[in-house]
Amino acid sequence: MVVVMKKGATPEQINAVNQRLLAAGFNVHLSEGVNRTILGAVGDRQRLEACSLEALPGVENVVAILKPFKMASREFKVTNTVVKVGNACFGDGSMPVIAGPCAVEGRELFLETALEVKARGASLLRGGAFKPRTSPYSFQGLGEEGLKIMAEARDITGLPIVTEVMDQKSVSLVADYVDIIQVGARNMQNFFLLKEVGKINKPVLLKRGLAATIEEWLMAAEYILDSGNEQVILCERGIRTFETYTRNTLDLSAVPLVKQLSHLPVIVDPSHGTGKRELITPMSLAAVACGCDGLIIEVHTNPAEAWSDGPQSLIPDDFGLLMEQVRAVKMALSADRRED
Amino acid sequence: MVVVMKKGATPEQINAVNQRLLAAGFNVHLSEGVNRTILGAVGDRQRLEACSLEALPGVENVVAILKPFKMASREFKVTNTVVKVGNACFGDGSMPVIAGPCAVEGRELFLETALEVKARGASLLRGGAFKPRTSPYSFQGLGEEGLKIMAEARDITGLPIVTEVMDQKSVSLVADYVDIIQVGARNMQNFFLLKEVGKINKPVLLKRGLAATIEEWLMAAEYILDSGNEQVILCERGIRTFETYTRNTLDLSAVPLVKQLSHLPVIVDPSHGTGKRELITPMSLAAVACGCDGLIIEVHTNPAEAWSDGPQSLIPDDFGLLMEQVRAVKMALSADRRED
Amino acid sequence: MVVVMKKGATPEQINAVNQRLLAAGFNVHLSEGVNRTILGAVGDRQRLEACSLEALPGVENVVAILKPFKMASREFKVTNTVVKVGNACFGDGSMPVIAGPCAVEGRELFLETALEVKARGASLLRGGAFKPRTSPYSFQGLGEEGLKIMAEARDITGLPIVTEVMDQKSVSLVADYVDIIQVGARNMQNFFLLKEVGKINKPVLLKRGLAATIEEWLMAAEYILDSGNEQVILCERGIRTFETYTRNTLDLSAVPLVKQLSHLPVIVDPSHGTGKRELITPMSLAAVACGCDGLIIEVHTNPAEAWSDGPQSLIPDDFGLLMEQVRAVKMALSADRRED
Amino acid sequence: MVVVMKKGATPEQINAVNQRLLAAGFNVHLSEGVNRTILGAVGDRQRLEACSLEALPGVENVVAILKPFKMASREFKVTNTVVKVGNACFGDGSMPVIAGPCAVEGRELFLETALEVKARGASLLRGGAFKPRTSPYSFQGLGEEGLKIMAEARDITGLPIVTEVMDQKSVSLVADYVDIIQVGARNMQNFFLLKEVGKINKPVLLKRGLAATIEEWLMAAEYILDSGNEQVILCERGIRTFETYTRNTLDLSAVPLVKQLSHLPVIVDPSHGTGKRELITPMSLAAVACGCDGLIIEVHTNPAEAWSDGPQSLIPDDFGLLMEQVRAVKMALSADRRED
Repeated sequence: MVVVMKKGATPEQINAVNQRLLAAGFNVHLSEGVNRTILGAVGDRQRLEACSLEALPGVENVVAILKPFKMASREFKVTNTVVKVGNACFGDGSMPVIAGPCAVEGRELFLETALEVKARGASLLRGGAFKPRTSPYSFQGLGEEGLKIMAEARDITGLPIVTEVMDQKSVSLVADYVDIIQVGARNMQNFFLLKEVGKINKPVLLKRGLAATIEEWLMAAEYILDSGNEQVILCERGIRTFETYTRNTLDLSAVPLVKQLSHLPVIVDPSHGTGKRELITPMSLAAVACGCDGLIIEVHTNPAEAWSDGPQSLIPDDFGLLMEQVRAVKMALSADRRED
Repeated sequence: MVVVMKKGATPEQINAVNQRLLAAGFNVHLSEGVNRTILGAVGDRQRLEACSLEALPGVENVVAILKPFKMASREFKVTNTVVKVGNACFGDGSMPVIAGPCAVEGRELFLETALEVKARGASLLRGGAFKPRTSPYSFQGLGEEGLKIMAEARDITGLPIVTEVMDQKSVSLVADYVDIIQVGARNMQNFFLLKEVGKINKPVLLKRGLAATIEEWLMAAEYILDSGNEQVILCERGIRTFETYTRNTLDLSAVPLVKQLSHLPVIVDPSHGTGKRELITPMSLAAVACGCDGLIIEVHTNPAEAWSDGPQSLIPDDFGLLMEQVRAVKMALSADRRED
Repeated sequence: MVVVMKKGATPEQINAVNQRLLAAGFNVHLSEGVNRTILGAVGDRQRLEACSLEALPGVENVVAILKPFKMASREFKVTNTVVKVGNACFGDGSMPVIAGPCAVEGRELFLETALEVKARGASLLRGGAFKPRTSPYSFQGLGEEGLKIMAEARDITGLPIVTEVMDQKSVSLVADYVDIIQVGARNMQNFFLLKEVGKINKPVLLKRGLAATIEEWLMAAEYILDSGNEQVILCERGIRTFETYTRNTLDLSAVPLVKQLSHLPVIVDPSHGTGKRELITPMSLAAVACGCDGLIIEVHTNPAEAWSDGPQSLIPDDFGLLMEQVRAVKMALSADRRED
Repeated sequence: MVVVMKKGATPEQINAVNQRLLAAGFNVHLSEGVNRTILGAVGDRQRLEACSLEALPGVENVVAILKPFKMASREFKVTNTVVKVGNACFGDGSMPVIAGPCAVEGRELFLETALEVKARGASLLRGGAFKPRTSPYSFQGLGEEGLKIMAEARDITGLPIVTEVMDQKSVSLVADYVDIIQVGARNMQNFFLLKEVGKINKPVLLKRGLAATIEEWLMAAEYILDSGNEQVILCERGIRTFETYTRNTLDLSAVPLVKQLSHLPVIVDPSHGTGKRELITPMSLAAVACGCDGLIIEVHTNPAEAWSDGPQSLIPDDFGLLMEQVRAVKMALSADRRED
């Protein structure tokens, strides 16, 4: 942490900052320059927060040096966290793919889709029982009925199931049914929900917020880790920019960056990340090529009849082609790395 | 709603779209051009959603024409909604100012600040009992203890109190203590929370999300209105952009735009909107000049000791000067308008 | 400037950084913490650039402390720069308003508009002779013919004229005709153009880039100042965000911020800043209230026939009402400040 | 093009819009709904611009339906444009890689780097002789001296050379020396420069603007094509967002999207796109996997001594490893596609 004093800051003002830093247990070094005095403080960033240094007279700027996340950081835990769900592993170098429709719309349709995606190599099933919708007049999901259908699909296919939970109250209900609990982009900073899913013994799929920085995303993971749940899978799903041809701008550079900053696995959602069916396959391959730990893809047997997200859903056959290409890219990279 | 067909779309594809629109009860007009066929559909946008038109073969693009919000729209209700709380009115042309510290840090400090801001003309008190914090290691608020302190301050000053609720479970608890319930920027699309505050009989202060479009913000208001609560006050508090000198970019053009699109009152938060104390007064005056229905300002008797948001808090004396200037600008505009 | 070393950086790596900083003439202070070593360097930021510190082994991060602009900074020149053009002054506390159509479309129309805006209190005339257009098929301006029409309008009205120059080659031509040369948003980082207008003896109106940070904008001004021209007027005209209801997001907080950081005058363009006629008046008043040094407004006698920017042009009568309200707000603020 | 009338628009207002559209040669269909009347106009978008429809009384909104680019569009030319430079081809399914330092800093260093990157498989050399720098105090490039050094490197290595031109005046000078002329991100909408490079008979590498939409980028290409130069190579180099851990957000979804919308080849610059050395290899592989037509990579023999962009430059050995992996991914995708 570095405190930059204003030009013309008085010795008393400088001293006041110094005293506050020392009182908070920091090691302080003072540098007096021609234009500015700066104070370097080495210690615990968390403790500094309570100091309100920027509000002290004569202070121009306070610059944080250390990253604020701890348990989520690669320094805290050097080896990759591997989250195991059924036969699928996130973070061990394999490439599990989660597939299924945006929303669970009915029993038969979901079971049919489940069998289709299993046949083409999906490792887990996705589906929404509680849907976050911009409009109160849109279909809000089947609720517990949807969870039951998903559980039946798991029994039939043997594939673990993933669904979103939108509120604190439903966490235990959802956890009773599914294998991975998803926290959606709109709830990434719903801190009560994060604490709640931090208390259960199921993996959590944490989507990046609509306009969240990578630091905020890792801080959201920190809430879950700090509450006691270490099985966190991060999911990049596009951020909000000025571009309008795509629904979001898929930030794939977040994948290698998060792998450096953190030990947690990170997967990619090209369906929400682009909003366009024809971009899903190329962006899936790109995600694999830059090192993601898995994919989550919307598949619907009849997108033109889907109740939501039809335009960004693949049909099963296209999903099958995608899986083949994913395997080819993955193998090429593994082979190349083995030879190094 | 306009459906644009791809170049080379077949008559069968065009007909399939036409049939689906007719089945959904739309009036359809077909325009065949040299390069494209477009179908104009007039009817209810909500019904169209289930059509999944973009997923039909041959469809290039679907363009929405009507705004998706209804109860929040100026067309639904032509006259301004006025939200009355104690002696303060939002939306009637007066300029109520909500003031107080970011968080309730303790009884004496809060009561002292309450008396200070009342003496300088504040109409309502603000303070946080539940604090949404990026880090799990930051001060999370005093909880119910904070609510009690706020209620005591109301008894002493006579000013109504405003505080944030962060989760569905606490809504009734918070509603028991305070006069206006705030939904924070991070929860603007926490739809379960929106529905919950839609069921109570207290005004709701709905902050714009960190990166929410104006349309999404009004759709969030729609959730509350649709759940039965018509007392919604909107609050612009800055949006996320690439600029780093300010904490957020305060989007003041949202004020006159929302006043056109909606009948709901809209107030401005220049403290969070800029993150810098020295910008609060000029941006407050700007907000008044472009027609806002109120302000919410962070005031702390000793910002350098504040547990949060010290750098963006005014001291009471500066708040007093701000109030004088606000009155001057307000009066100038009213006088000018009276003369028209 | 602060250099943060990676966790586990070796003493040799730390020493290499230290030696390079010392060689560049910096004062260096070393702080060794439990997790990190940081080096504080006090000296001239410009010299540091050539050091490529971030590329040295063991370096995690380099944090700039000082602002990079010099001649544009308030520290370099404490008093406001006042740019005088004819009877208008930018930066002396008055409120000159520049008005006129987006493009010069023809002689009679321009002269008519010129007389209309003069009658309603405009201090300068605007008009485009060279138009930056997204499409090569759009009207590109009348060129020198347009400059002649503008000069004639100046002769008739006595008002100074402002127009945009788009390329280096035309600078001397344009400077021969007009009183203020405008550098448009798309050319804010056209460095050759900046250097060229830096060599002439006419004021330059420098618009903020479409997505420029305030720092980059002041650095663009620095190019002009450094080339020898001290008459720079900054113009906020909206930045690019995800919001689609407005053409741009007018960043009014830039006004008081730039007034703090720099001695240069700053004016506001609510026409391009919002793209919507009905937002021009409220945003003009807001700009005045937060301390701008002038306004630039698009006015057209028949917006529905305008060749460009019709939807964001005021008719003369509405411009007249705007001017009245601008004066009222300006007077209220001056009166209030006089009494302090 | 669809014109949406305001609720309550009068028959006269609707008729006025209709007449103007008919006069401009459009086919018009009128749809009267309960809430709104909309007019669908099929014809040439370019002609419509002069209509200023949004400025007509009673008009709420004008929605463009067709894309504004023509010569750049896939509809205009169905087959891929292939740009051939020496032995390298952009757009034919091969994967040419352009490599070299950010700036030409001196003869020996550049020649050495040229040989290093050639040995590792680069097909073209890059280097800056004219550097666009945010600060007027930063190194601005060696100018013509740099061009001579580059030409010498071409003679020695046989590799074609690429450099940026920053102003209209230097176009012919630069074209005399180099094989591909680059238009940088900051000049993407410097329309005079675009027209100038449109007149020469050399390929143009057109970088996406700092915050340009894909539509604006293709419109910039349209300027070059319309001026007579059909050899345009597009280059995605990251866009500006709120994320601060990376220098820009590399928008890889632009690659498959541009390939759909346009026949022009598109390459990727992961160096500027991320600003971080350790992200260059993963993002290069991702770019290849999603279908780019080439890469441009900054390589420096001693990044810690580079005068600019050291932190985002690879050393030759790391560049060699990148090339191996690029080949592996490319081969995997080709093999997989062959089998289909």
